[in-house]
Amino acid sequence: MVRVAVDAMGGDGAPDAPVEGALSALRDGGEELEVLLVGDPAVLERLVGDEPEAGDRLRVVPADETIGMDEPPARAVRRKADSSIVVGLELQRRGEADAFISAGSTGAVMAASVLVLRPLPGVDRPAVGAMVPTSGTPTLVLDAGANVDARPHHLHQFAHLGVTYYRDVRGEPEPRVGLLNVGEEEAKGDELRTAAHRRLREDPDLSFVGNVEGHGIIEGEVDVLVCDGFAGNVLLKFYESVAGFVSDLLLRAAGDAPAGREVEEILQLLDYREHGGAPLLGVDGVSIICHGDSPPRALRNAVGVAVRSVESGTVEDMREDLRALSERAARRPPA
Amino acid sequence: MVRVAVDAMGGDGAPDAPVEGALSALRDGGEELEVLLVGDPAVLERLVGDEPEAGDRLRVVPADETIGMDEPPARAVRRKADSSIVVGLELQRRGEADAFISAGSTGAVMAASVLVLRPLPGVDRPAVGAMVPTSGTPTLVLDAGANVDARPHHLHQFAHLGVTYYRDVRGEPEPRVGLLNVGEEEAKGDELRTAAHRRLREDPDLSFVGNVEGHGIIEGEVDVLVCDGFAGNVLLKFYESVAGFVSDLLLRAAGDAPAGREVEEILQLLDYREHGGAPLLGVDGVSIICHGDSPPRALRNAVGVAVRSVESGTVEDMREDLRALSERAARRPPA
Repeated sequence: MVRVAVDAMGGDGAPDAPVEGALSALRDGGEELEVLLVGDPAVLERLVGDEPEAGDRLRVVPADETIGMDEPPARAVRRKADSSIVVGLELQRRGEADAFISAGSTGAVMAASVLVLRPLPGVDRPAVGAMVPTSGTPTLVLDAGANVDARPHHLHQFAHLGVTYYRDVRGEPEPRVGLLNVGEEEAKGDELRTAAHRRLREDPDLSFVGNVEGHGIIEGEVDVLVCDGFAGNVLLKFYESVAGFVSDLLLRAAGDAPAGREVEEILQLLDYREHGGAPLLGVDGVSIICHGDSPPRALRNAVGVAVRSVESGTVEDMREDLRALSERAARRPPA
Repeated sequence: MVRVAVDAMGGDGAPDAPVEGALSALRDGGEELEVLLVGDPAVLERLVGDEPEAGDRLRVVPADETIGMDEPPARAVRRKADSSIVVGLELQRRGEADAFISAGSTGAVMAASVLVLRPLPGVDRPAVGAMVPTSGTPTLVLDAGANVDARPHHLHQFAHLGVTYYRDVRGEPEPRVGLLNVGEEEAKGDELRTAAHRRLREDPDLSFVGNVEGHGIIEGEVDVLVCDGFAGNVLLKFYESVAGFVSDLLLRAAGDAPAGREVEEILQLLDYREHGGAPLLGVDGVSIICHGDSPPRALRNAVGVAVRSVESGTVEDMREDLRALSERAARRPPA
């Protein structure tokens, strides 16, 4: 049984979209899924009232406060202990849930996840990992925006977090790692990039393929693409919008029936909502961050991502991997 | 009369693609264009031999050496004074040409442009300006990769270079300026971004609209988007590849005749080659950098960009604007 706490008050479409997404996940999820809807009980009980899916696999957990999209995240998290975000994460800390998903304030979900779940030993900064569609298998890009800058050892940690997650969730035994950079040669980029390149290349436990340029991403050159949070954030928001822009053009051009189904498939491939939220990797628990404008389908898929994370035991695998990494670092003679 | 020197030995398709592009530009360009083809005279004279367009508006300028794509740019430029890149730029320095275009090594063209043409007074670092298609008017993104990092005053200079160029070349009297960032609020981003934001906001000569996030680019929120060269380079290479990726999917899905022409139009809109090269802004002259894989059409369009730059007097306008900027800075009491 996997127990997923869902922030029912977060996101533009709350509470309807999270509730609908949760119900839809319960319909798909078999007997092994339990959903804890966190939020205003009066509102939530009315919404789920007559749903046959609700049954005993859906439970409402009261939370009196909500954190707005525009509130300063760290302060809001500290002040609002009864917010749906903090209450939802506390369930996991107390062992009453296995995962948390939210389409609320990204900053608040990140801050609360770090505060409540705590970083794993050996992690200086948790990172957001976003799966992006490519012409091959999807690529996990991290950090997709938890931090605005990074130092070489942060990028090194991101690589380990990303590889473990990708291996567990996608079943790829040896994920290829790349470093986002402005050229393929190892001397390319600023000091951050050249130092990170060296660390990644010298790590015997990583399948490091080298630098990946902007155009290499969509070609699926790597499974895990490491970058600082500024570049990752800009890139992903840009990707989503380009995909949308092109889709609009596409629908306008190919609006005739014969192309309909195939065009739909393309749109679906490009639609980030299909990919169901981005995990915050490096905290001691499962926390999935969804877009504020996530429709029910995206939230349903995010529940699926949460379930795969829990079932694959990726947090424990990360803990193991980080322990081995720090032991190796301790044995290494000082440079 | 505008005299454009074309590096006939640069790029994957050289010498055929540059020669064909130059001839095509001459066919379109009326009596006001003269092309100087720089490269191996034996090869070039054979290629242009019987072309009626050649006439007296096409001249071959001998250059004995070429700079390879893989040579370390700065060293190659210093050692190869007879390379097509250095010879082509020297023509401009001596007043024998008004502009230079090349699809050769980007690093070498940048290094040689700075060395031969010299930066304009008040410019610490010239920047590559790339016009990207949006759902509205095109946006000039700079720096698109001349430098891998930047300081706040560099971003401020980029804004001035970009605004002057956009105004002159696109005829937009008051270009809107944005700063690429991870959020809209002015406090978002790292120290570089918050300091640059303050400089841009306090400059009375800029129409600064604030921060632009990744998804704002394609929406055409601004005319000039300022960013560091790392983010700009990654973004543009990514954009080109996403556009290509989506186009491939699109062509596969909508391969039937009715959608054909409209699909073609979309592909054309997204195709960077239509936009004809990126100017290196902030040097004392016109230097246009083209993709290594530019087909003749892209090189023809780059000649067009060069002609518009020369005819609009954008280099003199930048010189004027930078002088005014530094005079204002000198009058300002120290912070």
